[in-house]
Amino acid sequence: MTDPTVPRIPLAELEAGVPFARRHIGPDAAEQAKMLAHVGYGSLDELTDAAVPDSIRSAAALALPPARTEAEVLAELRALAGRNQVLAPMIGLGYYGTFTPPVILRGVMENPAWYTAYTPYQPEISQGRLEALINFQTMVADLTGLPTSGASLLDEGTAAAEAMALSRRVSKRAKGGKGAKGTEGVFLVDADTFPQTTAVLGTRAEPTGVEVVVADLSDGIPAEIAERGVFGVLLQYPGASGAVRDLRPVIEQAHGLGAVVTVAADLLALTVLTSPGALGADIAVGTTQRFGVPMGFGGPHAGYMAVRDSYARNLPGRLVGVSVDADGDLAYRLALQTREQHIRREKATSNICTAQVLLAVMAGMYAVYHGPEGLERIARRVHRYAAVLAEGLRAAGVEIVHEAYFDTLTARVPGRAAEVVAAARDAGVNLRQTNADLVGIACDETTTRAGLSAVLAAFGATADIEELDAATGEALPAALARTEPYLTHPVFHRHRSETGMLRYLRRLADRDYALDRGMIPLGSCTMKLNATTEMEPVTWPEFAALHPFAPAEQAQGYLELIRGLEEQLAEVTGYDKVSLQPNAGSQGELAGLLAVRAYHRANGDTGRTVCLIPSSAHGTNAASAVMAGMKVVVVGTGQDGDVDVDDLRAKIEQHREQLAVLMVTYPSTHGVFEDNITDICAAVHDAGGQVYVDGANLNALVGLARPGRFGADVSHLNLHKTFCIPHGGGGPGVGPVAVRAHLAPYLPGHPLQPAAGPGTGTGVGPVSAAPWGSAGILPISWTYVRLMGADGLKAATQQAVLSANYVARRLEPHYPVLYAGPGGLVAHECIIDLRPLTKETGVSVDDIAKRLIDYGFHAPTMSFPVAGTLMIEPTESEDLAELDRFCDAMIAIRAEVDKVASGQWPAGDNPLVNAPHTAAALGGEWEHPYSRQEAVFPAGVSAADKYWPPVRRIDGAYGDRNLVCSCPPPDAYDD
Amino acid sequence: MTDPTVPRIPLAELEAGVPFARRHIGPDAAEQAKMLAHVGYGSLDELTDAAVPDSIRSAAALALPPARTEAEVLAELRALAGRNQVLAPMIGLGYYGTFTPPVILRGVMENPAWYTAYTPYQPEISQGRLEALINFQTMVADLTGLPTSGASLLDEGTAAAEAMALSRRVSKRAKGGKGAKGTEGVFLVDADTFPQTTAVLGTRAEPTGVEVVVADLSDGIPAEIAERGVFGVLLQYPGASGAVRDLRPVIEQAHGLGAVVTVAADLLALTVLTSPGALGADIAVGTTQRFGVPMGFGGPHAGYMAVRDSYARNLPGRLVGVSVDADGDLAYRLALQTREQHIRREKATSNICTAQVLLAVMAGMYAVYHGPEGLERIARRVHRYAAVLAEGLRAAGVEIVHEAYFDTLTARVPGRAAEVVAAARDAGVNLRQTNADLVGIACDETTTRAGLSAVLAAFGATADIEELDAATGEALPAALARTEPYLTHPVFHRHRSETGMLRYLRRLADRDYALDRGMIPLGSCTMKLNATTEMEPVTWPEFAALHPFAPAEQAQGYLELIRGLEEQLAEVTGYDKVSLQPNAGSQGELAGLLAVRAYHRANGDTGRTVCLIPSSAHGTNAASAVMAGMKVVVVGTGQDGDVDVDDLRAKIEQHREQLAVLMVTYPSTHGVFEDNITDICAAVHDAGGQVYVDGANLNALVGLARPGRFGADVSHLNLHKTFCIPHGGGGPGVGPVAVRAHLAPYLPGHPLQPAAGPGTGTGVGPVSAAPWGSAGILPISWTYVRLMGADGLKAATQQAVLSANYVARRLEPHYPVLYAGPGGLVAHECIIDLRPLTKETGVSVDDIAKRLIDYGFHAPTMSFPVAGTLMIEPTESEDLAELDRFCDAMIAIRAEVDKVASGQWPAGDNPLVNAPHTAAALGGEWEHPYSRQEAVFPAGVSAADKYWPPVRRIDGAYGDRNLVCSCPPPDAYDD
Repeated sequence: MTDPTVPRIPLAELEAGVPFARRHIGPDAAEQAKMLAHVGYGSLDELTDAAVPDSIRSAAALALPPARTEAEVLAELRALAGRNQVLAPMIGLGYYGTFTPPVILRGVMENPAWYTAYTPYQPEISQGRLEALINFQTMVADLTGLPTSGASLLDEGTAAAEAMALSRRVSKRAKGGKGAKGTEGVFLVDADTFPQTTAVLGTRAEPTGVEVVVADLSDGIPAEIAERGVFGVLLQYPGASGAVRDLRPVIEQAHGLGAVVTVAADLLALTVLTSPGALGADIAVGTTQRFGVPMGFGGPHAGYMAVRDSYARNLPGRLVGVSVDADGDLAYRLALQTREQHIRREKATSNICTAQVLLAVMAGMYAVYHGPEGLERIARRVHRYAAVLAEGLRAAGVEIVHEAYFDTLTARVPGRAAEVVAAARDAGVNLRQTNADLVGIACDETTTRAGLSAVLAAFGATADIEELDAATGEALPAALARTEPYLTHPVFHRHRSETGMLRYLRRLADRDYALDRGMIPLGSCTMKLNATTEMEPVTWPEFAALHPFAPAEQAQGYLELIRGLEEQLAEVTGYDKVSLQPNAGSQGELAGLLAVRAYHRANGDTGRTVCLIPSSAHGTNAASAVMAGMKVVVVGTGQDGDVDVDDLRAKIEQHREQLAVLMVTYPSTHGVFEDNITDICAAVHDAGGQVYVDGANLNALVGLARPGRFGADVSHLNLHKTFCIPHGGGGPGVGPVAVRAHLAPYLPGHPLQPAAGPGTGTGVGPVSAAPWGSAGILPISWTYVRLMGADGLKAATQQAVLSANYVARRLEPHYPVLYAGPGGLVAHECIIDLRPLTKETGVSVDDIAKRLIDYGFHAPTMSFPVAGTLMIEPTESEDLAELDRFCDAMIAIRAEVDKVASGQWPAGDNPLVNAPHTAAALGGEWEHPYSRQEAVFPAGVSAADKYWPPVRRIDGAYGDRNLVCSCPPPDAYDD
Repeated sequence: MTDPTVPRIPLAELEAGVPFARRHIGPDAAEQAKMLAHVGYGSLDELTDAAVPDSIRSAAALALPPARTEAEVLAELRALAGRNQVLAPMIGLGYYGTFTPPVILRGVMENPAWYTAYTPYQPEISQGRLEALINFQTMVADLTGLPTSGASLLDEGTAAAEAMALSRRVSKRAKGGKGAKGTEGVFLVDADTFPQTTAVLGTRAEPTGVEVVVADLSDGIPAEIAERGVFGVLLQYPGASGAVRDLRPVIEQAHGLGAVVTVAADLLALTVLTSPGALGADIAVGTTQRFGVPMGFGGPHAGYMAVRDSYARNLPGRLVGVSVDADGDLAYRLALQTREQHIRREKATSNICTAQVLLAVMAGMYAVYHGPEGLERIARRVHRYAAVLAEGLRAAGVEIVHEAYFDTLTARVPGRAAEVVAAARDAGVNLRQTNADLVGIACDETTTRAGLSAVLAAFGATADIEELDAATGEALPAALARTEPYLTHPVFHRHRSETGMLRYLRRLADRDYALDRGMIPLGSCTMKLNATTEMEPVTWPEFAALHPFAPAEQAQGYLELIRGLEEQLAEVTGYDKVSLQPNAGSQGELAGLLAVRAYHRANGDTGRTVCLIPSSAHGTNAASAVMAGMKVVVVGTGQDGDVDVDDLRAKIEQHREQLAVLMVTYPSTHGVFEDNITDICAAVHDAGGQVYVDGANLNALVGLARPGRFGADVSHLNLHKTFCIPHGGGGPGVGPVAVRAHLAPYLPGHPLQPAAGPGTGTGVGPVSAAPWGSAGILPISWTYVRLMGADGLKAATQQAVLSANYVARRLEPHYPVLYAGPGGLVAHECIIDLRPLTKETGVSVDDIAKRLIDYGFHAPTMSFPVAGTLMIEPTESEDLAELDRFCDAMIAIRAEVDKVASGQWPAGDNPLVNAPHTAAALGGEWEHPYSRQEAVFPAGVSAADKYWPPVRRIDGAYGDRNLVCSCPPPDAYDD
């Protein structure tokens, strides 16, 4: 009965199923064919052969395992997860167990409406995130007692480093140039600071000539240091040892020396302790991890910084502020953007260009959900566990080093520390072995009585928890009891039920536009699919709940995944070694440049400090170079958008002896494959310099060309661009640094996890607080590569190039397309030039960007790298229908501009200049020369599925003049 | 340094943290106090003491373990999950491994926008779900080759039972009354049918007088059966054994006998096999489980039924159809609602009153995501695995019983079946032991080569899969090769990329209104919080991936949870025994009445068949009674809304000898605590009857009174009401039946899992296909009880009563409140009477319900239990702000009605009669006597956060006249 008429399809073919690449890549074969025909090529290979210069093309396919199905990769991930062991995480040092309220876990961290959003540069369609961030800022400002908080930094270590830089900038001492001889001044760090923070400070200080001095400041600043001059002081509160000290005397002393004082403070402790602001600190930094953000073996978490009023305009990173829209209604947007490194370039004092938005949102929501009384209760519980433990240990004759503590104890067990830590581990608890005699024990929100008993047993103590509890009081110093109110704003009191919280999260998400609604064609940002399979493991407890300093044997699954991802990325880029530690592209840049610096110095080339950077480069390139102790020399850009090779050769010649490195983006920030890149690399090498290829545009290269093989020495990658880590609404990013073998000894390391560094003693120290940076989200990129395989990755790149060229061809008749490479082709993005239009009609880039909102789109990148233009990167994940919807909207907008040009619509009152239009505007009087229909339902917009911006165009300057960066009082919303 | 000024808070108090009950219950203490003051009581206890009759109050608190925190309960759940073992599920019998596309898992099953929605009775705010369901219907209709499919049924077994009832209704044989002697006719079931289906048919047939005859029909209908008369025939396709037979001859023969033919078909097989419709079947039934719905140890899954054209209006269950809105635009709504059991009551022929919407949405989306070519490829892979396995087994000398099969083989191993099954189990694969000689092996989407090798090894065969594959062809009969096209509609071709799918899911979800947007104050439906912690375990693989017929030792975690939930529910209700098998309230009713019937019969009381039902009862009560072979006698309702006790006593007297049972809802469907319930129970018992208390309103009783202790013998509960299982947009429901000890022997059982039944041989057989019904969602209710503890449950009930009374008091000055119990208090819901208003102004219940949409609300229950009224149930989960927002909207609407009454607005053109208003309407011309502002932004509605209905008021009758129940062609959307 076997049917001979049905041809057998081999099992292997059937098993392949629909490759994941076909889910990741938007257009199917038929759509691809249509697009290729439009662009004028017969196949993807033909197209990319024409677009990508032969000189850089890889001959062979990437040596990666074949693509696996989603089911297979999920099974692999579960197996890896099974090889991580989650112990009670009582190590402390800035990482603590925390319970993420499930409504926040599912409603934010697992919700594409939150995690696929972009940075809120288009504030009109980001009001939800901006409100969430202003909650975060208010929370930090309230708890630290310092009025202005930024929208989050990368982690506590880098936040401390940013505080150091800020201190230097603002301190009288630094300004007066009274630094000690041969240095740019001393930054004094208390000995009871987290070791990873001190190490990050060291890494960041060295190239800038700052000397980090570590000293025990518990009895004040030693005279010999005071005499040398100190521009800044950092104090940990509570200390790494757990000690809670009254910092007022040392702060006063530091101020007397003209130093700026930073307190690295634990936010949970601040619910019951006098705030840094009240103690006199100028700056507070720290992490908000324990506010509901999973440890994730190190990150990502939201670091924070808050400052006194006078420093508000000097804050590094992003800052959300209150402003008004065109109707005068309250609206949020990023404040003071002129401070940002992408604008200040080589004048920047920080290269931070992202926040940890997704995590900051979670931490802020944790405070919204618990409110001040809930947070205090958690703090008191944590403290009580510590007090009970101390009582039990003392009763058993163990010395507890400090009388006053919050959640962390240091126990002295002469010679027995290793043994105690091992015994605790066997009982399921990780403690900290500080040295041979001291054991650190940190309690947190997840601590249980069973955990306490296990710890007591590990010390050889047995005790009745109930009895101990009754026997001991609080160990918080009376002098430091918090009396200042905090989180008094109604938002921290209104959403206490889960139903209320669920709706608040949805309401905010609904105000925003993210990838789950439509395309975000941001040039240089690669807003592609963040597939669910890639996201799933991130919140599995076996990946989410590991302490970054847990012993390596408990993290075998993680370590295998990390090594695997390093190898995948090395293969993809053609480099020899990758470090995953940098937790943002900017940090990858810094790490890469520090490696170059260290390499030259190791060769005795201490004078090689010039960094050549094309004028079209990302602004962070220059900022990072300055932070790496380099001098930036700008190279011009030719008419065609390429690097001006004549100018480059001249600059190389001029700085031949000082040349450290050329930083160049490839394909260029103009979105073209320059065909002279190999020559450029050779010229730099001939002069003794290194070549840094910024990996921002790697999405145009994967599977086609490998920077490490076409001439570069070092790159950073953006896993949040090319490798599918979602943008999270403005962070997390991950920016690994990849190097050729000669630079490998100079990659970052970590004082507490030697396995994270080059292991040669030559590393430049840590650039992030955690050994593997944002380890918790690395499964995303690992999964992506595993699902795609070599063929899938290449196909994605080819489609990205095809899509960009398709868009360019469709828009060309309506807008001039700037720059093209070989064959008149662009790479993976294209720039359309609005300057002629603007000149003729007054319609600006802004008007068109905002008008796109009315059509249901997020705008492309505005005025980068060329003012007056839009840069469009469609990515491979958008299907043809969506690409056409976008092109149709752009063409329709062009017709609207023509109506302004022809005078049919006045320049001051037309749908462009008034964009975006809100539902509220529609409901009221209508006195425009165009109809409501034209305003909000132009061609292609479905009224039923319309995205409505919640506010009209926002006046950014107003907010900058009237800086308000915490939750406005409720009556501010009244008209 | 220990601070003596800070008082010690005992650890135990701190550890309790914020009890989950405070997250579940909306109003906090301050809000409660405000509400109590408004209602005029000093405390919750005072209020409920006044509201709830003393005669029914429980003296003691519920004996439940104390409330646990969310973290603790999640840890317990993880431990339980760890005690379930997930083996390769090659058992078959209608349950198969499937891979839920992660974008559907996260985007639908884990997304509150989908799972917290209500049944789409308000179609204007349910267009997303309705479109998803029409996709489902189109998928089923296409694959089965029968033009009209319903919106899903509970499972395959009950779908078969519904087909039996439908067959009886429509068959000439049944109409002609030519049934065999002493029966109402014969329903003939092929022997190769899933055993659980046959068993469910038996349970359902017996009380209605139908005889189920099982016979081997592979060679046609035996003459002796044909002679007896057969009104319907059921054939399984492919058979339970795996055999694929050409059913045309037997179908033709059955038609010749005047019988209606039902084919229970596997949808995946239908992608490659000729459809039941093309074979001549009249009805097709089955499950869509393997289309991406996790097995969940038995359910919930979406069963299906499709029928030939002439039966379309007889379909049981829900049916989505196409209609038009007030603008003439295409819109979806539930079609033919007059067929529904809640309207037809004792004339109903089915008691099905829910669908499995959430699961139907998933199955439909699975087809959207894969498309016809993807589904066929999955089918061919599954088939090829089976073919390879057959080849390998035959090569090893094992007989494969059937030549033609799709995915399932029956292997003959005389006397060795148990041994083979055990060996496979040891190797991680579950097979089916059919009997001592036969082993069933089913392949599915999750089958792997490793699984095949393990199976071969268990039979003692070793083989090279690649070689076997090359050696064997297809085993699908040529004569049955599918040639009919399917899934040709564009929706099954458009969303092939994950990005596209993600956006499609979001777009549909955004059209709908669910609990994540605002309250759904549906009387009798208890739309309360479905907490995330309760939902999380549902999609963990250890709960989601278990086959319902997996050996009990692999399901230890499940069984402990199931036993635990049974005990929790018994304690809460005061009954002695609970069966969780019924997978909807209607099935619980049926099971409860079947128990009563069996009890009377066991006592020799075969004449006790009268079921007394008050006229205010849920319509399903009567429908279920008829299905249980009872005669419904209606008892009147007094002016006060209570059961008319005089009439009741008269009816008891009148039917004294025939009295089987009184079915009564408590508190009554009028939302009051009747104070004579104990007397009523006594009177029924005195007459020899049983008392059935419908548990629909249990949310007013938990912790205050226990039906099993105040006089009732049996109840069904609605876990999707009181016990937090989400409504899923119209299913799943779970309706356990709870009984006193004397009825316990008559609870449902299951042929394949004896542990699921009473174990006494007295059970009434299965009422669901799976042993424990929708086991996969039972963790939700278990978790709820665990999180709340006795005190929390009681507090929730008290708050529910307070909230209902608060709403009643606030609305009373504006709308008359119908019915009240002791103290002038309502129970957990209240009815407001619109009849006077309607009479005066013409403004109808519908107008007010639709106008509430403009204010951002889902309407209360309309015209149940009293026509012309709204029944409002706020539940305990809504906070005061939301309750006030609702009351304010109702009061504002009342003022709008007054403007109609006063003539300010004409009766034919006002915001009520035109409601709901769409954004599209706002964009166009405006010629109404009220403003756009008044239309869409009335007081309290924020323009920025407005919920916009996607369509205007829908004309249901139009759609019923022009019945279209599959996806309309794309051009139908044009104006």
